[in-house]
Amino acid sequence: MPVVRVSVTLKPSLLDSAGRTVADALHRQSFTEVQDVRIGKLIELQVTEVDEARIRQMCADLLANPVIEDFSYEVVQ
Amino acid sequence: MPVVRVSVTLKPSLLDSAGRTVADALHRQSFTEVQDVRIGKLIELQVTEVDEARIRQMCADLLANPVIEDFSYEVVQ
Repeated sequence: MPVVRVSVTLKPSLLDSAGRTVADALHRQSFTEVQDVRIGKLIELQVTEVDEARIRQMCADLLANPVIEDFSYEVVQ
Repeated sequence: MPVVRVSVTLKPSLLDSAGRTVADALHRQSFTEVQDVRIGKLIELQVTEVDEARIRQMCADLLANPVIEDFSYEVVQ
């Protein structure tokens, strides 16, 4: 059965406070090569059939908030 | 500057209650082709240099909980 992997990320213009906290924690553990961290969601949908128009509709209506988030997807199996 | 995209997912044997809730919501909106939903995290690290051993260490120590989560990563830029 195909799996659709949806990535939902905060729009680049928005401050990612959770990412900032993770970056600070990494720095405290001496991972100083990390310059920036952004945290998003990874949603794996197992579907009976792949209809790209419907997948885009699911993302825009329910999985992502288009006001503050971007989404992309790929069919992986 | 390279970007490392880390995917953190719940181990397959564990029940994903958030994913179950999203699947139910999709079904209520008549997206009945969705059989299962799993929700994970997508963490983008902007780093000055890519050292795979250190990236694996960041994942195991801080970004993922190896007791209940799996992780993978790819260098994207």
